[in-house]
Amino acid sequence: MNQISQENILVGEIANGLPLTIPVYRLTGNGSGPKVYIQANMHGAEVQGNAVIYQLLEQLKQQTLASDITLVPYANPIGCNQKSGEFTLGRFDPITGTNWNRMYHNHTKLVDEFVTTHLNSSLAEIKQAFKHLLVQSTQAVLDGPAHSINTGKRIALNLQRLAHEADIVLDLHTGPISAKHLYCPEYAKPSASYFDIEHVLLIPNEFDGAMDEACFCPWWSLSEAFKQHGRDIPVLVEAFTVELGSQEKIDLAEAKNDANSILSYLTHKEALLNSPYQPKAMARYGCMLTDYLAFYAPMGGMVEYVAPLGAHIKAGDTIAHILRMERYLSEQPLQVITLDTDAIAILHFASASVNQGTELYKFFTNYFEL
Amino acid sequence: MNQISQENILVGEIANGLPLTIPVYRLTGNGSGPKVYIQANMHGAEVQGNAVIYQLLEQLKQQTLASDITLVPYANPIGCNQKSGEFTLGRFDPITGTNWNRMYHNHTKLVDEFVTTHLNSSLAEIKQAFKHLLVQSTQAVLDGPAHSINTGKRIALNLQRLAHEADIVLDLHTGPISAKHLYCPEYAKPSASYFDIEHVLLIPNEFDGAMDEACFCPWWSLSEAFKQHGRDIPVLVEAFTVELGSQEKIDLAEAKNDANSILSYLTHKEALLNSPYQPKAMARYGCMLTDYLAFYAPMGGMVEYVAPLGAHIKAGDTIAHILRMERYLSEQPLQVITLDTDAIAILHFASASVNQGTELYKFFTNYFEL
Amino acid sequence: MNQISQENILVGEIANGLPLTIPVYRLTGNGSGPKVYIQANMHGAEVQGNAVIYQLLEQLKQQTLASDITLVPYANPIGCNQKSGEFTLGRFDPITGTNWNRMYHNHTKLVDEFVTTHLNSSLAEIKQAFKHLLVQSTQAVLDGPAHSINTGKRIALNLQRLAHEADIVLDLHTGPISAKHLYCPEYAKPSASYFDIEHVLLIPNEFDGAMDEACFCPWWSLSEAFKQHGRDIPVLVEAFTVELGSQEKIDLAEAKNDANSILSYLTHKEALLNSPYQPKAMARYGCMLTDYLAFYAPMGGMVEYVAPLGAHIKAGDTIAHILRMERYLSEQPLQVITLDTDAIAILHFASASVNQGTELYKFFTNYFEL
Amino acid sequence: MNQISQENILVGEIANGLPLTIPVYRLTGNGSGPKVYIQANMHGAEVQGNAVIYQLLEQLKQQTLASDITLVPYANPIGCNQKSGEFTLGRFDPITGTNWNRMYHNHTKLVDEFVTTHLNSSLAEIKQAFKHLLVQSTQAVLDGPAHSINTGKRIALNLQRLAHEADIVLDLHTGPISAKHLYCPEYAKPSASYFDIEHVLLIPNEFDGAMDEACFCPWWSLSEAFKQHGRDIPVLVEAFTVELGSQEKIDLAEAKNDANSILSYLTHKEALLNSPYQPKAMARYGCMLTDYLAFYAPMGGMVEYVAPLGAHIKAGDTIAHILRMERYLSEQPLQVITLDTDAIAILHFASASVNQGTELYKFFTNYFEL
Repeated sequence: MNQISQENILVGEIANGLPLTIPVYRLTGNGSGPKVYIQANMHGAEVQGNAVIYQLLEQLKQQTLASDITLVPYANPIGCNQKSGEFTLGRFDPITGTNWNRMYHNHTKLVDEFVTTHLNSSLAEIKQAFKHLLVQSTQAVLDGPAHSINTGKRIALNLQRLAHEADIVLDLHTGPISAKHLYCPEYAKPSASYFDIEHVLLIPNEFDGAMDEACFCPWWSLSEAFKQHGRDIPVLVEAFTVELGSQEKIDLAEAKNDANSILSYLTHKEALLNSPYQPKAMARYGCMLTDYLAFYAPMGGMVEYVAPLGAHIKAGDTIAHILRMERYLSEQPLQVITLDTDAIAILHFASASVNQGTELYKFFTNYFEL
Repeated sequence: MNQISQENILVGEIANGLPLTIPVYRLTGNGSGPKVYIQANMHGAEVQGNAVIYQLLEQLKQQTLASDITLVPYANPIGCNQKSGEFTLGRFDPITGTNWNRMYHNHTKLVDEFVTTHLNSSLAEIKQAFKHLLVQSTQAVLDGPAHSINTGKRIALNLQRLAHEADIVLDLHTGPISAKHLYCPEYAKPSASYFDIEHVLLIPNEFDGAMDEACFCPWWSLSEAFKQHGRDIPVLVEAFTVELGSQEKIDLAEAKNDANSILSYLTHKEALLNSPYQPKAMARYGCMLTDYLAFYAPMGGMVEYVAPLGAHIKAGDTIAHILRMERYLSEQPLQVITLDTDAIAILHFASASVNQGTELYKFFTNYFEL
Repeated sequence: MNQISQENILVGEIANGLPLTIPVYRLTGNGSGPKVYIQANMHGAEVQGNAVIYQLLEQLKQQTLASDITLVPYANPIGCNQKSGEFTLGRFDPITGTNWNRMYHNHTKLVDEFVTTHLNSSLAEIKQAFKHLLVQSTQAVLDGPAHSINTGKRIALNLQRLAHEADIVLDLHTGPISAKHLYCPEYAKPSASYFDIEHVLLIPNEFDGAMDEACFCPWWSLSEAFKQHGRDIPVLVEAFTVELGSQEKIDLAEAKNDANSILSYLTHKEALLNSPYQPKAMARYGCMLTDYLAFYAPMGGMVEYVAPLGAHIKAGDTIAHILRMERYLSEQPLQVITLDTDAIAILHFASASVNQGTELYKFFTNYFEL
Repeated sequence: MNQISQENILVGEIANGLPLTIPVYRLTGNGSGPKVYIQANMHGAEVQGNAVIYQLLEQLKQQTLASDITLVPYANPIGCNQKSGEFTLGRFDPITGTNWNRMYHNHTKLVDEFVTTHLNSSLAEIKQAFKHLLVQSTQAVLDGPAHSINTGKRIALNLQRLAHEADIVLDLHTGPISAKHLYCPEYAKPSASYFDIEHVLLIPNEFDGAMDEACFCPWWSLSEAFKQHGRDIPVLVEAFTVELGSQEKIDLAEAKNDANSILSYLTHKEALLNSPYQPKAMARYGCMLTDYLAFYAPMGGMVEYVAPLGAHIKAGDTIAHILRMERYLSEQPLQVITLDTDAIAILHFASASVNQGTELYKFFTNYFEL
């Protein structure tokens, strides 16, 4: 049975002076495998990742570990506890509106100088030195004057400092009402098939503030910078956002399936030794991020969502009905909404009431089999 | 094909000076049946009633009507449009916290004087005169100084004035995540079996601010007051709160079922002539309001709801798991929550995250077959 | 220098499993004076009471104390930390809408049986026994099944248990934008003149859920019940809600003034010995609670508040302008709002945008000099 | 007396199907002056601009106008009416968290092709053609599929279409609690002295989504692009964000001062003929945007704001006290917060309760006299 240790890290203070803390669980491997970092619940309503971490801990304590593994549930102690009405208002800072998952720090600017000083270093030296640089640079921001860091940034930096220690980073999220899908950097496409996730978004080397990007962009840029100096090195870190399904839902059986899916990927990466976890046989579909279509409500009203999540829609299919009872006599009160392209429905809005322009659905378009 | 007319009533003004209006649809019968009033969506997230009104209009325009029927979707133009995050924050006034369905006016105090002046009136005279009194008294409150009526009260009074014209009042609501159930005044228990609703809450003659109570309490008290004067008259008005299922959901097929259920009741009340609508054969269960058990979360955490809604629970059954990942090492992180009595699970909280003391479930206890 | 001790009491748990605690500070007197309980910040935005408790502690540690004094800042760890936009949304439970200061328990029903068993007890015995009964009865509710107590009730009961130990209870609040005023039970009117507060609301023996009422109603009813048995005993406890001014504001100098005002009252009650605190000479005005006029916005719009808080308004005076720029061409865009009675303006709404029916002002009418 | 016309433009629909409209007021000049566009209240709580538009209309109808002038109060019908508790939650879309003033469209990419086709056009031709291009390109986005535009973007585009017709654009905002200040593009610095505003932020040619940037960036880039082709043309449009003071406040007298300030600037720009409006003699201070310092709360607590707004702070001065009553016994409960540089305090947070990392103050540093 592997030992699990717990540390509570301090990430802020609230108005009555009480500390904001996050629990960090750690297992130690034999040192031969890649270091792993997994966090959950950065967005307050996206709770299922905590159940996945529960199921991961239950499994991991019985496995032979090559890797050190760090698991962080409740990554955002503000978002997690912010209610507005019955639902958790945890997608953005309630004071500023800033998305909690857009506050990570971009260290890509460190790449150029690093490359010039490590042109002839070994791959192992590069990996160790750049990882050290990322961790130290994150710490340096945290060590700046207290008045220079806002609330969300302080939480993000504390997590990012832990994540930069790892070679594999998984950030567990959910959609609003959603099919499972995976945000996968384009270079890591082969790894996507080790998760039991049907839908894979392939994302470019662009930083938009998220944890996965904060973890892989510097390493991807490092690889590209070496290429410009004529040296080919792989991207040495993999980072994914795993979208587990719908928010505001705990399902322990499904969490076990998702834990197994992650363990299958970790087995492939040799973080676990002699492990039984294998990916399931399933069709997997990819979509480039630029083809990920946000479909906004073309009118205000009450929505019946018709397109099933995960379903392959044909151009012209009905995806929703919008009921507008103000206009029962003056026009057709039940509007049929269709999509004009083939697509896979990935997620839809959490509420049945929409303004004109509310994001109704997101679709994979121009998708392809992986 | 029956004619439907629309009127938009003015119920307030918002900060940029724009009017708040509510659409009112009316069908006219031959005058032989009881007048009917049906409204929906007083709580902003409880949208399915609008779909039921849509399906009712679609059916009613093809029926032979004995009754005048008034249908009011979007009864609360503030609640209906109040978002906080993805969900509709429409259970209470966002400024004051007052539940929108606790703002109706109690006219029971009119009963005593009315009875002394109508001791020997005919039943028809009593009905007409008391109805007139309720409508006029509601209007009189509305006609008071504008600065004497708060926002929610003004909306409620405008609806109540319409409802007091009717002999039958249905207020369409939903629970958070909920099985269908009916709030039925105790005296109207026989009518409950004409709805296709398995679960019936029998409520006493106590005013707590809701529409159904505002409509039946004065008539129930009138009947009791006549009894004290030695005369037996029936309660001349029936009013129900119909709980259609879960909030934040539009389901047009299910709305048709619910419309049929309401039409079955209206057929029984002879509001429709030669109508085909009949109640379904089903077991129906009753519960006294005092036995309606609110079960609060005994600890904070992330909840997996286990008891299926509508299910008959045995004492000792597990109703939920509460996951507490802060305490993975220090105590059992997955707590099993049981109920210590036989019960029917009627509804549960809408979110998977709860504080200690959040209302987790509501149960029928001491239930009986109707 | 008096010793101050601190205890943190546990009043709940939030969704990530962390405890909700409240700090309780205590000073011990020589036992000859009445026990004192002072709390602040039950409503999240009403923060100034914390500053008053700070100034009280600074003073009290240098005084000769006859009384044990308990001081509780941050009485509501949820409300205190609940932001929605820049402001603190702390007047009501964000999940249910229930006003946090309407959750206390009414123990008045204990009076009748108590009186029959203490008809001939001494006043000291009555005081001790009834106080013990209130404390134990509060504890008994808290000791009930965890699933029977909701979030706000658990916080309230924990505070109420502490408050019932005391003979003098002060609940420090603020209005939205407000002049200082005092909620004073009618029987305690003579005590009102020891506070440096110009405006005094005299309230009846009716329980509406607030802390002050929870503390004095049982004792007032006890006195009345003894009277019905032919015995005159005074009301043995005094409880006040002290409204310190405006919410969302910390003013340390003003807090010192308010601390002095409270110390003047406590000196009068002989809680402090040889203390220098004396009430200021000032005109004090009283108003019966039934004459406390809520003035709702007669139309929607943008408000310029004209009546100064604390000002004595004459009937016909302008109290506000409401700007309605939607109607610049169609009607007078700047509406003048007047009051049709003499009054003292006590508080007004916190925002410049109002719906029709938003509470604009509250006024003392039919006021009189104390 | 000049005629004023009103049009209500449709900018969306809400969930109950009701239209969202914005009132647009227009005055017509003799055609010799620059066209003027002024809007207010894009952020819901920033209401004072509506009062300034009221005062502008009152003045403008009596002036001799060289210019067509368009005035738009209540620019955001969602933000304006979104309450959460007593305050207006109108800084960001309550569903997505997106700042309403970051949704405008950047047309700068149109510049390059335009310049190549207008290298030898006259200045008047360039102005007319590029203005036409901006208006048409905005309209083209609006004419795209309804499902491609989100709620805030649709509002923004409708306003931007109107604003691109003008040569002078003023977007009236306020800070939370704030001194008056002006966002001024660097090239328009000489114009800043015609406003009666002491504090001027000079901003670069960078697009961050705001109205002023959307209006001046394309024209600034146009000027720069011509320069690269060897031709010097001025920046032909001026756009400013005018920060009028504090949010949640209507002050009609101050609004008249601000209207006069704007009329003084418009007189300088020859939009008004023979007008009496002149800038006041006052010291005006400038600050580069990069020197505009956000000072985040270094700890959680209750804040007494000490630095007066508009005050010139010396390095080491106290700017705030933070009270932390959880720690009365364990550390200094009243923390003194100082600033380590000379600065002008421009605005501070609206609430007295802050988390660690809440934006406490914003300061001009390295400021200079204009």
